[in-house]
Amino acid sequence: MDTSKDTSRQSTSSLLSDRSTVSMLTEADKRSPEELGDSDLLSTPEEAAEAGPPPWTEQITIRAIVAAAVLVFLLCLLSQRTSLGAGVTPALSVPAGLLGFFFIKTYTLLLQRIGMVTKPFTPQENTVIQTCAVAGAALVISGGFGYSLLAMDRTSFEVLGPTRGNTLTDVVQPTAGKVFPLMLLTGFLGIFFLVNIRRMLIIDFRLPWPSSTATGILINSFHNAAGEAKAWKQMRCLLEWFTATFLFSFFKWFFSGRNGASCGFGKFPFFGEKALKWQWQFDFQLIYVGSGMICPYLVPASMMLGAIMSWGIMWPIIDSKRGEWYPAEYTSTSYSFQGLYGYKVFLAIALILGDALYNLVKVMYKYAVRLNEIYRLGLREKEMTEEQFDEDQKYTLQLRETYRERLLRTRYFKQEGLPWYTGICGYIFFAILGCACIPQLYPQVKWYYVLICYFVAPPLSIANAFSTALTDQNFASTYGKLAIFLFAAWSGSAGNGIIVGNVICNVVMACIHSGTELMQDFRTGYLTRTSSRAMFLSQIIGALMGCVMAPATFYLIYNAFPDIGTPGSAFPVTYGPIYRGIAAVGVSGLSTLPKYCLWMCLAWFLVGIGLDILRDLLPKRYAQFVPIPMAVAVPFYLGAWLSVDFCIGAVARFLWSLKMPASEELYMPAVATGLIAGDGLWTIPAAILAIAGVHPPICMSFAAV
Amino acid sequence: MDTSKDTSRQSTSSLLSDRSTVSMLTEADKRSPEELGDSDLLSTPEEAAEAGPPPWTEQITIRAIVAAAVLVFLLCLLSQRTSLGAGVTPALSVPAGLLGFFFIKTYTLLLQRIGMVTKPFTPQENTVIQTCAVAGAALVISGGFGYSLLAMDRTSFEVLGPTRGNTLTDVVQPTAGKVFPLMLLTGFLGIFFLVNIRRMLIIDFRLPWPSSTATGILINSFHNAAGEAKAWKQMRCLLEWFTATFLFSFFKWFFSGRNGASCGFGKFPFFGEKALKWQWQFDFQLIYVGSGMICPYLVPASMMLGAIMSWGIMWPIIDSKRGEWYPAEYTSTSYSFQGLYGYKVFLAIALILGDALYNLVKVMYKYAVRLNEIYRLGLREKEMTEEQFDEDQKYTLQLRETYRERLLRTRYFKQEGLPWYTGICGYIFFAILGCACIPQLYPQVKWYYVLICYFVAPPLSIANAFSTALTDQNFASTYGKLAIFLFAAWSGSAGNGIIVGNVICNVVMACIHSGTELMQDFRTGYLTRTSSRAMFLSQIIGALMGCVMAPATFYLIYNAFPDIGTPGSAFPVTYGPIYRGIAAVGVSGLSTLPKYCLWMCLAWFLVGIGLDILRDLLPKRYAQFVPIPMAVAVPFYLGAWLSVDFCIGAVARFLWSLKMPASEELYMPAVATGLIAGDGLWTIPAAILAIAGVHPPICMSFAAV
Repeated sequence: MDTSKDTSRQSTSSLLSDRSTVSMLTEADKRSPEELGDSDLLSTPEEAAEAGPPPWTEQITIRAIVAAAVLVFLLCLLSQRTSLGAGVTPALSVPAGLLGFFFIKTYTLLLQRIGMVTKPFTPQENTVIQTCAVAGAALVISGGFGYSLLAMDRTSFEVLGPTRGNTLTDVVQPTAGKVFPLMLLTGFLGIFFLVNIRRMLIIDFRLPWPSSTATGILINSFHNAAGEAKAWKQMRCLLEWFTATFLFSFFKWFFSGRNGASCGFGKFPFFGEKALKWQWQFDFQLIYVGSGMICPYLVPASMMLGAIMSWGIMWPIIDSKRGEWYPAEYTSTSYSFQGLYGYKVFLAIALILGDALYNLVKVMYKYAVRLNEIYRLGLREKEMTEEQFDEDQKYTLQLRETYRERLLRTRYFKQEGLPWYTGICGYIFFAILGCACIPQLYPQVKWYYVLICYFVAPPLSIANAFSTALTDQNFASTYGKLAIFLFAAWSGSAGNGIIVGNVICNVVMACIHSGTELMQDFRTGYLTRTSSRAMFLSQIIGALMGCVMAPATFYLIYNAFPDIGTPGSAFPVTYGPIYRGIAAVGVSGLSTLPKYCLWMCLAWFLVGIGLDILRDLLPKRYAQFVPIPMAVAVPFYLGAWLSVDFCIGAVARFLWSLKMPASEELYMPAVATGLIAGDGLWTIPAAILAIAGVHPPICMSFAAV
Repeated sequence: MDTSKDTSRQSTSSLLSDRSTVSMLTEADKRSPEELGDSDLLSTPEEAAEAGPPPWTEQITIRAIVAAAVLVFLLCLLSQRTSLGAGVTPALSVPAGLLGFFFIKTYTLLLQRIGMVTKPFTPQENTVIQTCAVAGAALVISGGFGYSLLAMDRTSFEVLGPTRGNTLTDVVQPTAGKVFPLMLLTGFLGIFFLVNIRRMLIIDFRLPWPSSTATGILINSFHNAAGEAKAWKQMRCLLEWFTATFLFSFFKWFFSGRNGASCGFGKFPFFGEKALKWQWQFDFQLIYVGSGMICPYLVPASMMLGAIMSWGIMWPIIDSKRGEWYPAEYTSTSYSFQGLYGYKVFLAIALILGDALYNLVKVMYKYAVRLNEIYRLGLREKEMTEEQFDEDQKYTLQLRETYRERLLRTRYFKQEGLPWYTGICGYIFFAILGCACIPQLYPQVKWYYVLICYFVAPPLSIANAFSTALTDQNFASTYGKLAIFLFAAWSGSAGNGIIVGNVICNVVMACIHSGTELMQDFRTGYLTRTSSRAMFLSQIIGALMGCVMAPATFYLIYNAFPDIGTPGSAFPVTYGPIYRGIAAVGVSGLSTLPKYCLWMCLAWFLVGIGLDILRDLLPKRYAQFVPIPMAVAVPFYLGAWLSVDFCIGAVARFLWSLKMPASEELYMPAVATGLIAGDGLWTIPAAILAIAGVHPPICMSFAAV
């Protein structure tokens, strides 16, 4: 294996050493800009030298659309599985690129074998599939299925229980008559708004865009011989692990007993019964083990820190104050914000908000600095000269290409553009439609709430795209939570604040989340020299697919598992009661929260900011050990088990890299994807079995003796 | 790694391609005689050229005795764990050689580090440790702890239940006052009798002795640089797997609930509740997974065939005839020989007897042919000439050395011998002691039973040694079972046939089993040029240690687990009720057995002979797929779970060798030993916890819903 020789060489690219973003890449791909040759960035040396990519009409092909449709379905299902479960969704864009490659490659190989001539499979076509698939799958998150949509339903109302502001009048079931129209109204907003400023975000600002850069390089690498051979190897490994995980999920199913019963591997008291009470367990959810494997080591470590702080120390202490700090009727398993659960959720939110606020300020500052540089050098309006390029390198945040590559790519990125009015007109059209129709669907939502939302979303959307380009983290849900709180408070209890807040959250998420995801695809398209027109069209097509597939996969699960949303069931919809709870607090005021909760929130808010400052101030060799506030906050309300799952994945990868670094380098992402996909796709047969009324035959249970 | 290059080269030595016998050897070691150089057979080229091994007084050292004592304890414990469990004991001589090497090597390295000069560690010393350890551990089997000793106790009486011939008067508990004297009386028999004919069995007959030849080559290989490096690598791997397995056994313990309760991994309905009823399950006993990994593929395959034939087909059919073929009160879980259990045990015995009978006849024939050759060539009395050696090669069964090597080794084997009367005198001394004392310990046993036994055992012992030298299988327990049946029938119910049969079985086993084990050690000693005097002495020392350690480890378990012998408990002592049952049938006649059982026995008896004939007649490429009757018979009464455990080990090894042949070649035996030792040594803390009254805190249970 060629790659094994490269393992000792350290990557000089600091941002790309983040493995979550370059998941499918081996060391060989992570070379610094100077080391990268034409062949890495452009599919073949010949192509780089003369012939450009095919025209955009040949980039969007029928076979690409068909492959994308299959992928949209698969990715929607995986996203639904996780967002209706623990609510933590792994990034799926790299697997999407890999799977897209294999669908078409297998198809063309089959056709060639039966003697038919096929058009060669180009990196551009690959990018189109990937863009289409990501655009479709993004609607699962931005459509709010595991979040705001289910926050409004009856189960969340019941789970949240007797909390001030949580009223039965604020219940709207996610019926198809409401969900499909809402998807169509909001699904395209993100595409239209940001498309006009794509040049600024992708080229002029010269941002790193870690994940999408990695995906672009990966797709290019598929289309040369060495990269293709490696990709086949990885694919075989992926399929093996996929099969094993799928079979294990099937195996687990047998022992899970009837829905709602306390049976199966999910109740395994791995660390004993006492630990299980405070959610310390390993529940054999390989999807999270895979997620823990594929993300940088700091994430599981931070999550474990968060789990120790919360489920190890704080919650048991707070629980011992029950009846003193808050009424004794709210036990440790109650989901009311007036009891322990209030601490769990609001302390997490405070930490996340502290982090988000710091990053927002930091991003704005960098944005200003960058704008200043760009205008000083005069790069905005005309092509850069080689001198300007060199000058720019001193200021640029991350540079991964040579001057010549930049020239080539910028040319392809700009030719075959779109009319300047496309974005604006599309956005205004959907905004008007939204203001008119959303109040029809949800009478509680006034048209001016929606209108305000459409005015506020664009600047936030730009800020979010900018911060994602820098940090590789999509903070859209933070803006969504803020919107819930503010709009719920504005409309108040009488105005059905819970419904208003959650619907508006959906609109905000649709703008911000999807827009950022699609901008990332543009970056990939830029690197693979895919025409902007083809990208835009495949985004529209992908969103259309998503508008159908996202609700379809949602209803597959929703109808199959009647206990969806119940804590402890297969699909607990962790974020449903949380989003509802945030709205409830918005409606009834912060005084609803239990004693000392606000002070603790303040403390964690400061911890969040403090950690970020620490990371920026410390020298890199220490800064890399500073916990990530977002990751620390996740187990606060989800439970320590998630940290355990993630850490098992991380430890397995660590041991693997210790014993067989070359093998880990090459196969780790494939193994992780196999784990994620195998566990995730088991959702389909599980749902079919549940719909058919076939119950697991055995209940594995645990009792203290 | 040097060995990885050799994996493609096929071994030309047919007998040594049996992996159970060369477990610690890699392909590089399994070269044909022509390929073997001095350095492989003699520790270093220099030694081979001039200096012989040190005198026998320097071969038995204090450090070797201490290391051997530790090993005897460990091996006794592992053997007790398996013989009191399922009754299937893996061969431990190769791990004993490896561990002995590491004890002394680590010790000398430590001494050197603190600046002390130590004598170099020689292959002869290594052989002494190995011989001592094996001699001690052999007493667990030949002492009949999991077999005839517990067949006499009250639990076996109760488990066997209402069967004709099974009476409460035939109960003798294994008290220390009976067990220790019996060990001392019988433990040395095997050593003394065969020692006189060692030259015939080891040198003159030129038999292959697969396992012990492998061990000898292995010990030689430890003492050159490349072999030592490989040994350290294997040791590290062994320790890792040992630790993991030990921790997993600890983990399993937590969920097993109180003794006797139906809790834990042992009750895991891996293939569903219905399959569990017919013993189809995976019970997570890694000791058997390791055993399945280390033995040749044909063994697990044969066991699986046996499981399918018995627990898949025959037993469910016979159970459906309950009330028709035999009284309805004997359900499928009854241990009475008058019900389904009678079929299970006697069909297995018929198959084993068919196999044993065929092999006995075959061995006698080969023995005669061989004797004829030897006397024709005149090899018996004087040193062979090179011409005779070449002539002999045409007739010899397996040749693994050159003429020069043979000369060297024969010289060392013969010098420092023993007085001719040692063996005879020792044997007669212990025979007289036995005839006098055993009837004192067990008044039911007449002195002339014992005396007859002492006359019959020696020729059987030679036959068994000869057949083990050829087939690498120790058939001693078959002779033991025959003895039970015959002596029980002779003394009858009035004469306490069950007690008589089982005590005599112990005496027979002590002669035959230990004698054969020790002859194997002489073969190892011959290859490592260890003095016969040192070997004999270390066997005596080892047997002395075994006389203490074997009962000690037995009582550790016996006292810690009061439910020992109960079916379904941690230590079911599978063979206890079987040995008792055989005696009961001997006492009350074969008419006790249920309907058609004798006819079925005849059928399986013929199948056993038929399979053996098939293997001998078919060309080798087909013969290698003919099932082994012994292995087919094992799951008949033990349950399909054992076949499942073994097959999981075999499949894991197969996949491993498919994906990473070099790694499998080098590490498989270490991994298997780690699994066996990790699970086996957990017995110590488990026993301590049980004695201290600490019960597992959780009961993991399974219920159909």
